[in-house]
Amino acid sequence: MFSPKMLKLGKVRSVIREIFEYGRKRAAEIGAENVFDFSLGNPSIPAPPEVNLAIKELLEKENSVALHGYTSAPGDPAVRKAVADSIAKRFGVPVTPDYIYMTAGAAASLCVTLKALTLPGDEVIVFAPFFTEYRVFAESAGAKVKVSMPGEGLQIDVDNFKSLITPSTKAVIVNSPNNPSGVVYREDIIRKVCETLKEKSEEYGKPIFLISDEPYRELVYGGVKVPYLMNYYKDTVVCYSYSKSLSLPGERIGYIAVNPAATNAADLFAAIAGAGRALGYVCAPSLFQRVVAKCVDKTSDINAYAKNRDAIYNGLTALGYQCVKPDGAFYLFVKSPIPNAYEFCEKAKEYELLLVPSDDFGCPGYVRIAYCVSYPQIERSMPAFAKLIENYK
Amino acid sequence: MFSPKMLKLGKVRSVIREIFEYGRKRAAEIGAENVFDFSLGNPSIPAPPEVNLAIKELLEKENSVALHGYTSAPGDPAVRKAVADSIAKRFGVPVTPDYIYMTAGAAASLCVTLKALTLPGDEVIVFAPFFTEYRVFAESAGAKVKVSMPGEGLQIDVDNFKSLITPSTKAVIVNSPNNPSGVVYREDIIRKVCETLKEKSEEYGKPIFLISDEPYRELVYGGVKVPYLMNYYKDTVVCYSYSKSLSLPGERIGYIAVNPAATNAADLFAAIAGAGRALGYVCAPSLFQRVVAKCVDKTSDINAYAKNRDAIYNGLTALGYQCVKPDGAFYLFVKSPIPNAYEFCEKAKEYELLLVPSDDFGCPGYVRIAYCVSYPQIERSMPAFAKLIENYK
Repeated sequence: MFSPKMLKLGKVRSVIREIFEYGRKRAAEIGAENVFDFSLGNPSIPAPPEVNLAIKELLEKENSVALHGYTSAPGDPAVRKAVADSIAKRFGVPVTPDYIYMTAGAAASLCVTLKALTLPGDEVIVFAPFFTEYRVFAESAGAKVKVSMPGEGLQIDVDNFKSLITPSTKAVIVNSPNNPSGVVYREDIIRKVCETLKEKSEEYGKPIFLISDEPYRELVYGGVKVPYLMNYYKDTVVCYSYSKSLSLPGERIGYIAVNPAATNAADLFAAIAGAGRALGYVCAPSLFQRVVAKCVDKTSDINAYAKNRDAIYNGLTALGYQCVKPDGAFYLFVKSPIPNAYEFCEKAKEYELLLVPSDDFGCPGYVRIAYCVSYPQIERSMPAFAKLIENYK
Repeated sequence: MFSPKMLKLGKVRSVIREIFEYGRKRAAEIGAENVFDFSLGNPSIPAPPEVNLAIKELLEKENSVALHGYTSAPGDPAVRKAVADSIAKRFGVPVTPDYIYMTAGAAASLCVTLKALTLPGDEVIVFAPFFTEYRVFAESAGAKVKVSMPGEGLQIDVDNFKSLITPSTKAVIVNSPNNPSGVVYREDIIRKVCETLKEKSEEYGKPIFLISDEPYRELVYGGVKVPYLMNYYKDTVVCYSYSKSLSLPGERIGYIAVNPAATNAADLFAAIAGAGRALGYVCAPSLFQRVVAKCVDKTSDINAYAKNRDAIYNGLTALGYQCVKPDGAFYLFVKSPIPNAYEFCEKAKEYELLLVPSDDFGCPGYVRIAYCVSYPQIERSMPAFAKLIENYK
């Protein structure tokens, strides 16, 4: 009676949500301080003070009709200019306001871009481990997903990637810093990925698009640099969100930036506008468009996440857990000591540790730990992690 | 290279936007006060003061992480309860929070509902004149649109409607008060539409869903009542937006309400959740979820629109224009004195009157006048309307 695909998507509760709900129930039973919930990627540090100041200033200075009214579909012109100028200044790419499309966050950016780019039967390549919703978004746009398995250090295995490209490959999604691994792809590997894309685009006589999903761009530690993909490959579309950088995940605000040097860039931008219209987006939330323009180069206190990363990475490796040191985002991807990560997560629950098995990320045998929690939670959880690993020694 | 459908949607500029852009250009040339732009349905009266007060209060009382964080996908539980309670109280329908899904406005509500309900080949019936984007949204979900032509007074012609229903009819969209006509469908006609739907659902052994798109519900004049469709037909889904009632069109906030008595209501709600996920909506903007909960029974100053309606309706009919008196929304649908409304609109431009031809609304031979403008604009425009009609006497 209803769309069976939509019914399934709505009914199959995500593993992460299940664990989160369990955590709430458990917290009610034994107290929140005794449950170590590492399941959700929900920022735990507040938005920078500039955000609420910007809101108050806008409420005082702007008239209601202008402030809360429709903007044009791609966004308020001054906001698009602020975003384009920031990109140009930070990354040296001549992006202009004409190629900025403000969106309701990264999920909207991806859905709109995929709907603009893909035709039924087109293929989209993702790199495991990958954000589970990529599959949902790509399939909703009518595309098929192919998964490239990782190499050493959870970096991209370029040979494996190359073997998956076919004449049907329309786009590739790169997510660095990565959810769920926290890995930042190395520049030499990015270069090889882009060379491969150039070669294959030439071979097939049509461009393969690179979609850079980068909500975690600003969350990097220890001076690591995240290559800006437009500088490496012309057919690049950047999907950005302020959810993590400004701790505004609920406000749904981000953008799509099309490289002005991309093949038929103006048509690509028009197709993006068409897809935004077809998916009902109308315009990105108007107040928060203005807010992010005023805070375009601000971030939340990233040091808090850096401190968490060091504490949990050092703590767990000292206890004997195996994982790649994450350079960004707020996730740690830990090898399960047994092949079945679900079973390991069930055992972890006995110690009130709520971890997410990696199977849905396309990379079985790991667990994801979201360390965007309070520092005391990390400290308090260490004895539990110690007891958990004892079971496998 | 890109999706041809999306490219077309993005490139074919809407007639309304074209006129609006022309109006801006003309205003720069001869002064805004000399251009009578009636093209856009953008509220001209501010949000009620409670909106900005609610924002300020939330910024002061709520912590940033909770206020700007993700809500669950269907919305914050307290917000869903406030909306459900308001519906139950105002319309006597036992809607519960479990059947409220907060959305990013009416366009999102419609896209999500249509994606949840329809399978490829399904048909959706709309009543002319109709909001042009219905076709875009329905076709994007994979459905086909059939148009029911209006009867006397631009009301629904029930016989014509009945003749369009087939075993492939999945849903019917009712929009009352109507954009672009301002007409409120009479209760006796709504009853007949619902009886027809019941008969046909029984005949085909499966429900036809009634989608009530009602962003203009609160904008009614002269004590007219808008029937609440859940009270007339069980398989009803209400798509609502606060864009007009609270003058917040840019903030993208609304909801879907599923009648708990609908066939397989829980599955329908699950399919809606799945469709929201597949279209990348994640959650409705979090700050404005809380704002509308605090202002759930407030509206902007509707009297300003009522005053405009009387002025423009009385003014134009006195000049000899023909139109149905609108009971709601902020549109007047005026008969073109010549069959070709495009030509009439071009002639109107000579008097700096910017009107929208009705062809895209599925009902040629009329023009839409959006009277959500300042009262002085209406007064100043009357001599221009007088000169325009002289051409056809």
